[in-house]
Amino acid sequence: MLHINSASIEKMESRYQANLFNTISGYKSANLIGTADKSGNTNLAIFNSVVHIGANPPSLGFILRPTTVERHTYENIKETGFYTINHVHESFIEKAHQTSAKYEKNVSEFEACGFEEEYLNKFRAPFVKESKIKIGLQFEEEHLIQSNDTILVVGKVLNAYLDEKLIAVDGSVDLTEAGTVTISGLYEYLKPVKLKKFQYAKP
Amino acid sequence: MLHINSASIEKMESRYQANLFNTISGYKSANLIGTADKSGNTNLAIFNSVVHIGANPPSLGFILRPTTVERHTYENIKETGFYTINHVHESFIEKAHQTSAKYEKNVSEFEACGFEEEYLNKFRAPFVKESKIKIGLQFEEEHLIQSNDTILVVGKVLNAYLDEKLIAVDGSVDLTEAGTVTISGLYEYLKPVKLKKFQYAKP
Repeated sequence: MLHINSASIEKMESRYQANLFNTISGYKSANLIGTADKSGNTNLAIFNSVVHIGANPPSLGFILRPTTVERHTYENIKETGFYTINHVHESFIEKAHQTSAKYEKNVSEFEACGFEEEYLNKFRAPFVKESKIKIGLQFEEEHLIQSNDTILVVGKVLNAYLDEKLIAVDGSVDLTEAGTVTISGLYEYLKPVKLKKFQYAKP
Repeated sequence: MLHINSASIEKMESRYQANLFNTISGYKSANLIGTADKSGNTNLAIFNSVVHIGANPPSLGFILRPTTVERHTYENIKETGFYTINHVHESFIEKAHQTSAKYEKNVSEFEACGFEEEYLNKFRAPFVKESKIKIGLQFEEEHLIQSNDTILVVGKVLNAYLDEKLIAVDGSVDLTEAGTVTISGLYEYLKPVKLKKFQYAKP
C-alpha cells in the first residue's frame, strides 16, 4: 500500500497532484449551471461539485473555483440572483464537457457547445432544453473557504422540471432511468448501475 | 413534464420531500468517516456529501447535518482535530449503510457494523481496514450554513493510503478498479461503469 504524505505531496508535479486529489474524494455529480447577466447574455458551465444541503427548505450547494469559466457563472448569479442546475445525461457528455473550455465572456456556451436555452414560467435564468432534470434556484448565501479562496454557493430550489415517470412512489428520482452520469476527477464520465436500495437503518 | 414549485413543495409529505431533494442533486460520493474522542472511543459514519475543495493544498469538505449520528463525528473532530475518510466499496455496502443507524454515543460503529479499526503511522483517527482508499485529514475550518443550520467542514489531507496500481500515470485514481460505489439519495448504492475520458477542453 502506497503512503502519500506531506513530503510526497510537496514533490508532486502539479497536474498529477490535481488529478490525484480530484479523483480521491470519490464520485461526483454532473450538472450544467445556466445563468444570464442583466442584459440576457447567457452562460453555461459544467460543475462536478453540486452537493445536497437540505430538503426542507430544498437547498443545493456547489463549490466555485476562481477560474475564468466559473467566474462568469458567479458574476451572473450575483448580478441576477438566479441560476439553473441541469443534469448531464449519457447522450450529451461530450458537449457538456466542452462547456469547461475557457470561452470569452461574450461567448455563450449554449451556442458554442450546441445546447438550446429554455425559458420556463418566466424564470430569469436559462434552463438546458436537452436536460431531463432541471432545477431553478435563487441565490441564498456564500461562504469563502479560507484555505484556498474557493466559494461555497448555496441556493434555494424554487422550481424543478422532470418527467413524472422518473419519480418513484417514495419521492426518489430514478437517476439511472434518466441517464444521468457521474464524474470521476475532471475528465472521466461514468454511468452508474444499480446495486441495492436499503431501508432506513436501525441499530 | 412535471413542474414542481413552491406551492407543490409546501404540500409534500416530509419523507417524499426528503427523498426527492436528496436524489435530485445527482450522484454522490460514498465515504465512511472515522473518528475517535480524546479517550480513544471510536466512531464511524457513512457520508454521501464529501466534496473536492482543492488539490493544492489538498482539501476535502463534507456537509454535516445536526443528527445524532453525524453529531458524534463532529464532536470527535472538534475534540481531536483529526479524522479519516475511507471509500465505500461494492463488497461492503450493506455494512457501510448500517453505520447510518442511530447508535448510542458509547457504541462504536466499527464493532457494531463489523469494521476493523486500523491505526497507521500514529495518525490519531482510525482508518477503516476494509477500505482500499483511505485518507487522513486535519480539521481546517467550518462554515455554518444559515438556511438550515448544516455545517460545511473543511479539512486538509495529510495522508492517503492506496494500492499504487490504482493510480494512473496522470495521477488519477481508478475508482472502478477499486470497486468504489456511488450513492443516489439516502438509500441506493450504485456501481459506475466507464463511458469516456476526455481531455482538457479548449474553445
